Amino acid sequence: VFTVLVSLNVKPDKVDEFLRAIDINSAATLRFEPGCLRFDVHRVVGDPYRFVLYEIYRDETAFHEEHRAAPHYGAFRAASAECIADGGHVNTFAAPVFPDRIPEATEVRP
Amino acid sequence: VFTVLVSLNVKPDKVDEFLRAIDINSAATLRFEPGCLRFDVHRVVGDPYRFVLYEIYRDETAFHEEHRAAPHYGAFRAASAECIADGGHVNTFAAPVFPDRIPEATEVRP
Repeated sequence: VFTVLVSLNVKPDKVDEFLRAIDINSAATLRFEPGCLRFDVHRVVGDPYRFVLYEIYRDETAFHEEHRAAPHYGAFRAASAECIADGGHVNTFAAPVFPDRIPEATEVRP
Repeated sequence: VFTVLVSLNVKPDKVDEFLRAIDINSAATLRFEPGCLRFDVHRVVGDPYRFVLYEIYRDETAFHEEHRAAPHYGAFRAASAECIADGGHVNTFAAPVFPDRIPEATEVRP
């Protein structure tokens, strides 16, 4: 299991465009990528231009290869280039400390 | 639904103590707090001293009042004071943009 936390600062005049793009990208990722186990989109309280994505993948390959090669990801990257403020995209990669307590992780066959 | 993201930088010589404390706190929160819908504990890849918690609560009250009043939370705060580096605890509060895609959120009765 491989977890990706994404912090995004959106340009104030691009929020609607960003929301359309992340709506399509998160829905398509969940629907078409069996390696994506979770894709939560959050807006930060008190900062309407900051968003956090919480994505869980089967493994690193499912993220680095399958997700990044998907057409919906390419479309999102293009929208992202328009909508995200300079330096406003930060990825954090992580691994669960207690995988047995991650419901999606227990579905992954070793 | 109310989401809490916690970034924690642990003192290098306190990692084992921190892991014991967060093990107890996350398990007890999930077991004894019906208002806590999710409590994922992650370690950041490439930074063995940084951890991220992803917690989803029924609502703000479940976090601010029920969670913070729980005895296991008090015990964790005490351990935290010993284990977390100065300035190494950052909370981010957030709300889901697409609540229908958060499995736990769909269990919450309005």
